[in-house]
Amino acid sequence: MPEPTKQELLIGVDLGGTKILAGVFTPQLKLQQTAKLSTKSERGFDAVVARIARCVRDVVDEADLSLKNIRAIGIGAPGAIDPDSGEVIFAPNLRWKDAPLKKELERALDVPVFVENDCNICTLGVHEVELKGKPRDLIGIFLGTGIGGGLILDGKLYGGFNKTAGELGHMVIQVGGPKCGCGNNGCFEALASRTAIFREIQKAVKDGGKTVLTEMLGSDLAELKSGDLRKALRKGDKLVEKVIEDAAEYTGIAIANLINIFNPEVVVVGGGVIDALEDEMMSIIVETALDYAMPGTTKGIEIIASKLGDLAGITGGAVLAKQKVK
Amino acid sequence: MPEPTKQELLIGVDLGGTKILAGVFTPQLKLQQTAKLSTKSERGFDAVVARIARCVRDVVDEADLSLKNIRAIGIGAPGAIDPDSGEVIFAPNLRWKDAPLKKELERALDVPVFVENDCNICTLGVHEVELKGKPRDLIGIFLGTGIGGGLILDGKLYGGFNKTAGELGHMVIQVGGPKCGCGNNGCFEALASRTAIFREIQKAVKDGGKTVLTEMLGSDLAELKSGDLRKALRKGDKLVEKVIEDAAEYTGIAIANLINIFNPEVVVVGGGVIDALEDEMMSIIVETALDYAMPGTTKGIEIIASKLGDLAGITGGAVLAKQKVK
Repeated sequence: MPEPTKQELLIGVDLGGTKILAGVFTPQLKLQQTAKLSTKSERGFDAVVARIARCVRDVVDEADLSLKNIRAIGIGAPGAIDPDSGEVIFAPNLRWKDAPLKKELERALDVPVFVENDCNICTLGVHEVELKGKPRDLIGIFLGTGIGGGLILDGKLYGGFNKTAGELGHMVIQVGGPKCGCGNNGCFEALASRTAIFREIQKAVKDGGKTVLTEMLGSDLAELKSGDLRKALRKGDKLVEKVIEDAAEYTGIAIANLINIFNPEVVVVGGGVIDALEDEMMSIIVETALDYAMPGTTKGIEIIASKLGDLAGITGGAVLAKQKVK
Repeated sequence: MPEPTKQELLIGVDLGGTKILAGVFTPQLKLQQTAKLSTKSERGFDAVVARIARCVRDVVDEADLSLKNIRAIGIGAPGAIDPDSGEVIFAPNLRWKDAPLKKELERALDVPVFVENDCNICTLGVHEVELKGKPRDLIGIFLGTGIGGGLILDGKLYGGFNKTAGELGHMVIQVGGPKCGCGNNGCFEALASRTAIFREIQKAVKDGGKTVLTEMLGSDLAELKSGDLRKALRKGDKLVEKVIEDAAEYTGIAIANLINIFNPEVVVVGGGVIDALEDEMMSIIVETALDYAMPGTTKGIEIIASKLGDLAGITGGAVLAKQKVK
């Protein structure tokens, strides 16, 4: 890498409920270095801000740079964000309310900081870096503990009236279906998130279903991870196969809904569940979506899995930082 | 009305499966005159084009004008439209496929013609005339025989990649629910359209339910109309009340989904079902939508019934005509 001139590099930060990931990027958005810290959200807002600042200093130092080389920082946080003020309005996973993230991080690091919702930032990263900014209209869907999304319309991140657009996980697709964390029933998130998949497997085991997972992890399945599901599937586990198939079908129906409503050029699917189970889920997702979407709506539309995986958040953070200081 | 100068007036046409409505509008989008003809779609494309042309000539003559006073015509057609070519790609109700509506009407009338999907045009009419073009982002939802919608994003009609955006009626909200005309199950349209409401009432009557409708119309309810439902409700009919309440709740859930996904400034509801049952349905629709939407998403967002009623289509047609020749 050529010697960076002063203040030319970008940092992307992915702030999660359990870990903080930071990455240094060139102005051309090439990733140079990453660093990781646990979030320890139970210690409260000030302590987490200090840990984010430490993670940023770590990654800068690891890359043999100083904060003087950093032009701006973009950070994705889980919850409702005011991108103008950089406040986290509400982040239930972190137990934050009206938290001045931009202000406090700028005070700690003396570098411009920009904040966005985590799923919006992942969508931005996929759009700009993985898809080279090409699709004019794009929907990003991220399947993890919960389900979130982001919308790119006319080439730009779309926030809507209250900047809360993209809450795709709480689209009800089965009135009267399973209870969701949000209080409603039958949300997409209550049917196809990791939480929903684990709940269905645990329910099936309780009802006497047989799975290799209980041999691997014990009958309470307390330590279940997405990777275990892949292992079970590769051993031909029928119970896990059925649950994953159902989740993939629900995801396909949700995507068909979004194609019927929006008609985007590209739908990109990512998140921990897809990172672990892309081979097992994507063909069912695509087939179901094409089956449910109205005739004529899907012509030329792509439904693809993101290749960025865990790096979507920091990549999008760097994109945000670059866009804001341009 | 002041004497119009040459070619300054606009015509909006609402082409439906059973009737053609045409209206003459001033350049300020004030309605001057309407005319109506039956569609007689069974006679085929050429005959329907001739009837549209006749309806336009009728309304012009009725207003003591000539076609020379008409600047442009905007027409809403039920189906998938290519707004650039003015072709009706597919309109199942009219049994049209790749029908060159713009070209043939321009040949018949020698006035510029612009074509859009009927629900898009209704949304445009409500946005520009009823709401004075104010909301930046708006969703229009029209409940009639089927359910359709239109999206205004960033002040403009949004078509998406294949120009098919706004197929809100085919958003699945109850996986495994009632069969929809589109072949899927549990679409919004299969739960809250006039067709769905009538089906539920007829089913309940078959199952032995009591309603004043059978006294009014005979036990097969073959002649049932939306207005009859209002009469039944005003007589305290519990069976009809329950079915209408359910349809209003499904509509509220669909609107909450759209608010979670889009976060528009305004959601406007219209169509024959709402025109007939606004007083009975709107409060349930709004209450359910606010209940199902995620916290923080609905602040300042309005959910309202359109006052344009039957005139939304011709009004939007005039708006389209005005926008295109500007």
